[in-house]
Amino acid sequence: MRDIADAADLSAANLYHYFDGKDQLLFYCQDRALDRMLAATAETRTARVSSADRLRAVFIAHLRTLLDEVEGATAHLQTESLSPTLRALIVRKRDRYERAIRRIVADGIASGELVDMDPAIVTRAMLGALNWTVTWFRRDGADSAEVVADVISRFLVRGIASRSPAPRRTLQAVKIQSGSRV
Amino acid sequence: MRDIADAADLSAANLYHYFDGKDQLLFYCQDRALDRMLAATAETRTARVSSADRLRAVFIAHLRTLLDEVEGATAHLQTESLSPTLRALIVRKRDRYERAIRRIVADGIASGELVDMDPAIVTRAMLGALNWTVTWFRRDGADSAEVVADVISRFLVRGIASRSPAPRRTLQAVKIQSGSRV
Repeated sequence: MRDIADAADLSAANLYHYFDGKDQLLFYCQDRALDRMLAATAETRTARVSSADRLRAVFIAHLRTLLDEVEGATAHLQTESLSPTLRALIVRKRDRYERAIRRIVADGIASGELVDMDPAIVTRAMLGALNWTVTWFRRDGADSAEVVADVISRFLVRGIASRSPAPRRTLQAVKIQSGSRV
Repeated sequence: MRDIADAADLSAANLYHYFDGKDQLLFYCQDRALDRMLAATAETRTARVSSADRLRAVFIAHLRTLLDEVEGATAHLQTESLSPTLRALIVRKRDRYERAIRRIVADGIASGELVDMDPAIVTRAMLGALNWTVTWFRRDGADSAEVVADVISRFLVRGIASRSPAPRRTLQAVKIQSGSRV
């Protein structure tokens, strides 16, 4: 708690005023990070953009949440430290987030904007590349969070984006012409 | 140690005959896994194949090492449990492995087979997607290690492979024509 209080520029007493202990604080951080990531997936749902652009926006939001802020980077992967009750809540929310990304991938495959790769496996590969940044990113390192988010999001989208995506308005015509999923 | 002995189908006494304790056993597993991964990068160096094919072979070897075998999956990420001396040895070997992949990426960018993305960041994104499998892969799950390795390796290579790679024999001509890195 003392380390966290220092990082947040608060006294330990002040921190205990808000949280009963490390467990609750950790839960709060993880829960808040997941809420932001889920909000990003929800935002792209209403936007009229391609699947590739939706994924890119979600990945950038994910990395900014993890790398830009104290609570994200320090706490995101420590679910093992939570009590069983709090851990179950986080795991459920995390599953919801994973399903939201998988849905964007599956929708993009169905529309031909993304190529046909197993959505569950590809989604987990994406999450791995994103979450792993916590193990190596340094605030005082060579690259800013912004640069890391830009490179990784482009790399991950490129991994599944169709090489010559059909313009949205002619998608149906292309489908009929080729006789199968584009 | 008892869990490990059970998994390896050995008596705990037998296991202690070979290793002084969990620390040494963990080191042995991680060291052996890294040796296999490094061997895969060395093998591709002598093969006359494209950068994309080299990366794909390395990724498949990485995932087979992690997911096919008891020691890889259970031990690969637990460097925190090692003594400082053993951890330093593993970290050094892991850095060597990371550099080997980064070199394949940089060579591929220089030859125009891969697109120009920051090799250090992209390599870490790749390693994240690969290593993260340990957190979710289940031997009794829907997909075999072989399928997971196939999908993830294709996805990661696709993320950086040139969309229309120049045939190797005409690379020099293309370079001269474009007047810069392809």
